[in-house]
Amino acid sequence: MKRYFAFVAFIAFLLSAVAVHAQTQQVDTIIAHGIVVTMDSARHVYEDGAVAVRDDSIVAVGPADEIESRYQAAHRIDAHGEIVMPGLINGHAHAAMSLFRGLADDLSLNDWLQKYIFPAEARNVTPDFVEWGTRLGILEMLRGGITTYADMYYFEDNVAQVTKAAGMRGVLGETFIDFPAPDNKSVPQMIAYTEKYIQHWQGDPLITPAVAPHSIYTCSTKTLEAAAALARKYHVPILIHLSEAPFEGDQSRAKYGLSPTAYLESIGFLGPDVTAAHCVWVNAGDMELLASHDVGCVHNPSSNMKLASGASPIVSLIAANVPVGLGTDGAASNNDLDMFEEMDLAAKLQKLVRMDPRALPAEQVVAMATINGARALHMEKQIGSLEAGEKADVILIRTDAPHATPMYNVYSQLVYALKASDVDSVMVGGRMVMEHRRMLTLDPAAILAHAHAYAKQVSASLGSALK
Amino acid sequence: MKRYFAFVAFIAFLLSAVAVHAQTQQVDTIIAHGIVVTMDSARHVYEDGAVAVRDDSIVAVGPADEIESRYQAAHRIDAHGEIVMPGLINGHAHAAMSLFRGLADDLSLNDWLQKYIFPAEARNVTPDFVEWGTRLGILEMLRGGITTYADMYYFEDNVAQVTKAAGMRGVLGETFIDFPAPDNKSVPQMIAYTEKYIQHWQGDPLITPAVAPHSIYTCSTKTLEAAAALARKYHVPILIHLSEAPFEGDQSRAKYGLSPTAYLESIGFLGPDVTAAHCVWVNAGDMELLASHDVGCVHNPSSNMKLASGASPIVSLIAANVPVGLGTDGAASNNDLDMFEEMDLAAKLQKLVRMDPRALPAEQVVAMATINGARALHMEKQIGSLEAGEKADVILIRTDAPHATPMYNVYSQLVYALKASDVDSVMVGGRMVMEHRRMLTLDPAAILAHAHAYAKQVSASLGSALK
Repeated sequence: MKRYFAFVAFIAFLLSAVAVHAQTQQVDTIIAHGIVVTMDSARHVYEDGAVAVRDDSIVAVGPADEIESRYQAAHRIDAHGEIVMPGLINGHAHAAMSLFRGLADDLSLNDWLQKYIFPAEARNVTPDFVEWGTRLGILEMLRGGITTYADMYYFEDNVAQVTKAAGMRGVLGETFIDFPAPDNKSVPQMIAYTEKYIQHWQGDPLITPAVAPHSIYTCSTKTLEAAAALARKYHVPILIHLSEAPFEGDQSRAKYGLSPTAYLESIGFLGPDVTAAHCVWVNAGDMELLASHDVGCVHNPSSNMKLASGASPIVSLIAANVPVGLGTDGAASNNDLDMFEEMDLAAKLQKLVRMDPRALPAEQVVAMATINGARALHMEKQIGSLEAGEKADVILIRTDAPHATPMYNVYSQLVYALKASDVDSVMVGGRMVMEHRRMLTLDPAAILAHAHAYAKQVSASLGSALK
Repeated sequence: MKRYFAFVAFIAFLLSAVAVHAQTQQVDTIIAHGIVVTMDSARHVYEDGAVAVRDDSIVAVGPADEIESRYQAAHRIDAHGEIVMPGLINGHAHAAMSLFRGLADDLSLNDWLQKYIFPAEARNVTPDFVEWGTRLGILEMLRGGITTYADMYYFEDNVAQVTKAAGMRGVLGETFIDFPAPDNKSVPQMIAYTEKYIQHWQGDPLITPAVAPHSIYTCSTKTLEAAAALARKYHVPILIHLSEAPFEGDQSRAKYGLSPTAYLESIGFLGPDVTAAHCVWVNAGDMELLASHDVGCVHNPSSNMKLASGASPIVSLIAANVPVGLGTDGAASNNDLDMFEEMDLAAKLQKLVRMDPRALPAEQVVAMATINGARALHMEKQIGSLEAGEKADVILIRTDAPHATPMYNVYSQLVYALKASDVDSVMVGGRMVMEHRRMLTLDPAAILAHAHAYAKQVSASLGSALK
């Protein structure tokens, strides 16, 4: 009788082993044994978790033992002691402006733009400048765990080439503006350039071409309408600066009798394809319009503070159901592209302006930098969380630095203690682009050398205006 | 004739060589070929500069070729490509509280203190806890270029031992408070402990013992007077929290009919030996009192924002001739001890609250973190600048990170772009304590291991209060 049971048990074991083996699926990579912060809707955190990746997508996320029993991978990454989370999404940047980092600070907005930034752009911005500046920005961003960025600048076709070569994801908006830009000298030229640019890049797995009318104070109604029409012809996103500083609202009310948001609504500009950077000076009515048209907003606390633009009412925007992401803006007004700094600042700024230490808790801020940032860019089905079916944009963050020890709460640590320099490895679309801080797709020495050379040129071009 | 001139020239050359040789003095260390940011009163910056150090002090600072022709050193540090500047001064900290980093965030002040911090302190703070917590804090601070810190906590004799062993400079204030503290259970015990502590440490080259009555809302007039009397008996500094949050002023006006500053003045507490942390809610009259009594103030922007204490009127305090330094506060309310973050935040916060991008320019912020921080601690004759006769507290900062490239202005870079992680080497009182990020006086692995163990104990001690 005993033997019989033993025999049955043995057969059962064999069958189950065969079943398990049959269920075991092949994937490309398993990132295992990290603290997996999914940012899924239930905010699952797996203390000993794993992520399975095939091609450019996530196949499964869960407890490490479960994932490792269901999948086998050619490549295995041990994330022991590290946080594994979705790559950060920088919702608003001008990457190439990294070459102007610290060029002219602590000035009035008018002096800063008219005496330094605009002349420096007019005299220096070429396709080559944009390529090296963008590489510098991407190098900094990837090193800080940013896997997607939204860009607004000139020569975006060059920006796209560089971004693609770096293996980074980008929503790259070509600028429309009512004065001659470094790349295009008139709106018809901007339309022609951008249409060709969109046709070239649409459908690319990493690059989303976009149309970026600069703002309502630099674009006529006609230009805004032309930009929106072009974007909607091709179903590509629209990026714009909105209600950044008080003067914009004053001008809009004087000219159109409407707030900037209401004016954009009145010309049919707002829609679920629009991402608006800043949204500092928005009232309750504006928030309702933004929410009802599913416009995404991107908060840029460093830039808003440094340029004295104001403090965006983020807590109210979120309460009004506006998807709110987080951005760095350009290095000329920040002066770096560091989402850890923006997270820390976003949380602290809301507490201060609301005089409430409970305002914008850490978990919400991490959401702004990930899944809600994806929502603000209308890309939440592709990026922003670690879930099966999402693109495999995954970062690994060391937790053993003195400034990050001990750790009681992972969201607190991400927002208030961890730094860009703690990011250890970065994967974009299933491809490793940084491994233990070694860059795999960029040549840092060449980028820094070109940055130094361009800085000399920029200084010389401004002559005596620079101290 | 030609020969005669050649002969005279040769003799002159010999004489000058002898003269140079006679003038060449022996020093211990020359730090050469860095960008030397002196923070002296003329704000000299030597693009290719050097610092000569003998024993624990600076002997000379100037252009590298001049320094190297006048001095020869046993030890030479090549600072090529690095910024060489005075060590940063953290004017307000509770170093041991690093063990509570991120324990409980995003809560009302009352919940934070009553449900978490006070119970956690009552159940965990022992001399051993304070020693390991202080080591953790010092490890983080030295790695971020902080060479001097002002501390307010318990068991300061242990804090002093650990600080001295780490080779760091400290103004270490033993807490007076009207409830039983982890170390002393009554004011007479606090007086006895502190008197012994002062006697033990007074005259130490690195440690300045201090008396730290917590605040006017936790100390009676009698306690404040006793603390001040003890400090003045021994001529040691007094550290206090002042006007951090609105409730303190409300209570003071209700109880004493005076603002907190005016109340302290009325009891003879203010003087050129007092350093007041925070000073958020100070009016013009308070500023005048602080200036006339030469009280130093320490601004803590991270903590003030995170706890929703308010924005200190730094620009006005500086205009009123109050010496204003910069601090991190404790890691429980920040959550790190990073003066680069505080510099960035201080500059941006003033711009925002004054809606003026010109407010508190970068150079002034670097001064707050160095020479003006020294003034706020009444130690400007010893630390805060690179000048002959000052203590050799010198830091070297790499400038080759992508986030710090290019560099147009060294002060802008320090405040808005460089990070604690860019600090390469740290010297305190002529002794290297970190060399190319290798710690020479601390055992990081042991410190992190103890921090993890204490975090487990702290979590267990709070039980169900922690999520």
